[in-house]
Amino acid sequence: MLPNPPYYSRVLPQWLIENKRDGRVLPPEEIRTFVQAYAAGELPDYQMAAMAMAIYFRGMTAAETAALTDAMLHSGDVLDFAGWPRPTADKHSTGGIGDKISLILAPLAASAGLAVPMISGRGLGLTGGTLDKLEAIPGFNTRLDNAAFRRVLADTGCAIIGQTDRLAPADRKLYALRDVTGTVPSIPLITASILSKKLAEGAAVLVFDVKCGRGAFMRTPEQARLLAASLLDTSRAMGRRVSALITNMEQALGRTAGNAVEVVEAIDVLQGRGPADVRALTLALTAQMTLLAGIHADAGTAARELTARLDDGRALEVFRRMVAAQGGDTRVLDDPLRHLPQPGASLDIPSPCTGHVVFVDAEKIGRVVLQLGAGRCRTLDAIDPAAGISGLVQSGESVVSGQPLMRLHARHAALAESLRAEAAAAVEIAAATRPPEPLILETLT
Amino acid sequence: MLPNPPYYSRVLPQWLIENKRDGRVLPPEEIRTFVQAYAAGELPDYQMAAMAMAIYFRGMTAAETAALTDAMLHSGDVLDFAGWPRPTADKHSTGGIGDKISLILAPLAASAGLAVPMISGRGLGLTGGTLDKLEAIPGFNTRLDNAAFRRVLADTGCAIIGQTDRLAPADRKLYALRDVTGTVPSIPLITASILSKKLAEGAAVLVFDVKCGRGAFMRTPEQARLLAASLLDTSRAMGRRVSALITNMEQALGRTAGNAVEVVEAIDVLQGRGPADVRALTLALTAQMTLLAGIHADAGTAARELTARLDDGRALEVFRRMVAAQGGDTRVLDDPLRHLPQPGASLDIPSPCTGHVVFVDAEKIGRVVLQLGAGRCRTLDAIDPAAGISGLVQSGESVVSGQPLMRLHARHAALAESLRAEAAAAVEIAAATRPPEPLILETLT
Repeated sequence: MLPNPPYYSRVLPQWLIENKRDGRVLPPEEIRTFVQAYAAGELPDYQMAAMAMAIYFRGMTAAETAALTDAMLHSGDVLDFAGWPRPTADKHSTGGIGDKISLILAPLAASAGLAVPMISGRGLGLTGGTLDKLEAIPGFNTRLDNAAFRRVLADTGCAIIGQTDRLAPADRKLYALRDVTGTVPSIPLITASILSKKLAEGAAVLVFDVKCGRGAFMRTPEQARLLAASLLDTSRAMGRRVSALITNMEQALGRTAGNAVEVVEAIDVLQGRGPADVRALTLALTAQMTLLAGIHADAGTAARELTARLDDGRALEVFRRMVAAQGGDTRVLDDPLRHLPQPGASLDIPSPCTGHVVFVDAEKIGRVVLQLGAGRCRTLDAIDPAAGISGLVQSGESVVSGQPLMRLHARHAALAESLRAEAAAAVEIAAATRPPEPLILETLT
Repeated sequence: MLPNPPYYSRVLPQWLIENKRDGRVLPPEEIRTFVQAYAAGELPDYQMAAMAMAIYFRGMTAAETAALTDAMLHSGDVLDFAGWPRPTADKHSTGGIGDKISLILAPLAASAGLAVPMISGRGLGLTGGTLDKLEAIPGFNTRLDNAAFRRVLADTGCAIIGQTDRLAPADRKLYALRDVTGTVPSIPLITASILSKKLAEGAAVLVFDVKCGRGAFMRTPEQARLLAASLLDTSRAMGRRVSALITNMEQALGRTAGNAVEVVEAIDVLQGRGPADVRALTLALTAQMTLLAGIHADAGTAARELTARLDDGRALEVFRRMVAAQGGDTRVLDDPLRHLPQPGASLDIPSPCTGHVVFVDAEKIGRVVLQLGAGRCRTLDAIDPAAGISGLVQSGESVVSGQPLMRLHARHAALAESLRAEAAAAVEIAAATRPPEPLILETLT
């Protein structure tokens, strides 16, 4: 029962676990060795699980987090755009309900002169991910190989693909382990997980949308601020130009949540229309990208230039080229409701009273969307691209009794019908309006 | 990335891990289910590793520790001595350098009228365990089946055997996991590990020797007190009569450390001789057993009666009967140096100066003993029964330059020779004596 005597000079994995457990700082080379051994299958899951739990309790310094991220990043392929004619930039969102920003932001940023090499994920929470949304477009191929990815990017300025098995395999393995060992909510582990995939894209500029509230993983502004700071510090330590917005995810974003329905809304915004919140957040995030990349000299210019590109169809044109280059049916852009997958049944949820919409609960909306079939409980669950919610009311609007609060779309009528009460409960209606909550809580540069 | 929605009512193991991680108290039935699933191989090592680390950080209440202990205890066989003619009692020591108390205590307690069903462990630290010491006696069999164990116990009043595969298998599996995941030093996990094996013996009375200091697992009196309290609380919750001594393990116990050499010293004490510290601690621990079992009415009677049994050979006689009943060569008792395994080489370590012995560092002695071949680094390492240290000086004694401080025994002369400096460094000699440290720091009843 005595500790290992110091004259055994071989470093055993449990000594590193013990050091982290006791609050000591692990040297970068020990973190690298640990992660490499884990990725290679030489270090068992149970030692990584114990280490992850020790990290949960003890945290990691910025240098430790950077070493962990670097080791996980280099467990797989890393793209390199050195010498590329356009500045490379991307955005990462921690995920929320109705978040279709990427579909608009990528072509908008590309239209302004950036190259956006976006490698995105599938949803594993309440709603689909960016890939699930794009795949609602018939023919859209998110599985390009590296050569095709670079070709689309060169031709159109943006490309959005899925993670391959060769991208940060250590993260895929560790994430699956964290999911079943109670070690998901750790800032350094989340940071390394996000960045090991995001930095593999090779973009020089990264903007983070750290969502905060009941519809997001980070529930409080304090948690969101900690994660944002960790993402910024670690990315900077690894040579990236970065900024972060902390944004409100108490209420659903926009008027749609699902997959095909969100594509429709994204096209709306790319046509200069769409909900004000989606438009404003897309413009704010894209402006951070163009500013950091040196495309625009100041915030005023960025706002003006990007707004113009949304309103005059230049961003939409890039989106059309990207959809075409990735094999998607571009008729979707001209007549989305006809060419996107259609739901088996739709159901309007009427307002029970007359009054003002004061809250649209993101978590409740998310749960309805999941049950409608638009999200996944498990990695391999199939999703229904046509399922979801459209025509969702937004805070500040007035409704009269019987007017639809939202429209549910599902495979069959009984499913939609079974969610009637839960859907109605997501919208709070009051006699008096309330002042609107800010959408962007903080900008960290 | 959102947490599992509450409407999934199935209890997943990771939810229990998350509850413990977040400092919530786990209900006894959830602990039982978790341990049973682990013992059955249905719950993977990585989930138990994460749980163990969460327990390390969050601790467990007395009720949780009792539930954990109970689940581990009932993962295997539990002996039952209901209706046995003698009261059953045993002692557990957390282990130290030169601790041969069990070899003396078991026959002494039996000679006073107790039944001592001792299931003991092998050493996995610096020196051998009680089993390793007994097995230095040629022919001594520590692998009795339950029937033989009960027969020896009935015939002689004590029996000392090793753990079988059927004793607390959940503990064996968990201990091996803790050893490689940095989760050994957790009071509730240590408590459940010790008690799941010790309570399986079925003894109604248990006395704990919680050692404390540089030669013990618990380094400080505070740690030792916490472990002792946990052992007492949990044992009482499970219906045992218990007490604990917290004893000093800064310095080696007695004049020998090893296996055969400790048998010699134990026989010395059973013959009414031997070092004062070994004799005093044995008497104190045995007295706790007889007092709790109601054999002796008060401490004075216990001390007098037990001292008499050591001095008049009654305890030795029980030891002789037990050795015979377990197949051992009883000639060892009459001429130990001849019938015990002999070392290949012995080496006196001379005192470098004249003065007073003021400290005999237990940890340093332990490391020398381990390197001499008397202990194990890994579970399956073979030990050399003849290896060890004899004739060790004790604090308070005077030495003259060149007089032996101790005698090393090893397989060959070069091995002993290589440890000359390290052995000498374990003994501190000063010009003036120091007041002796107390042997028994605290008695918890």
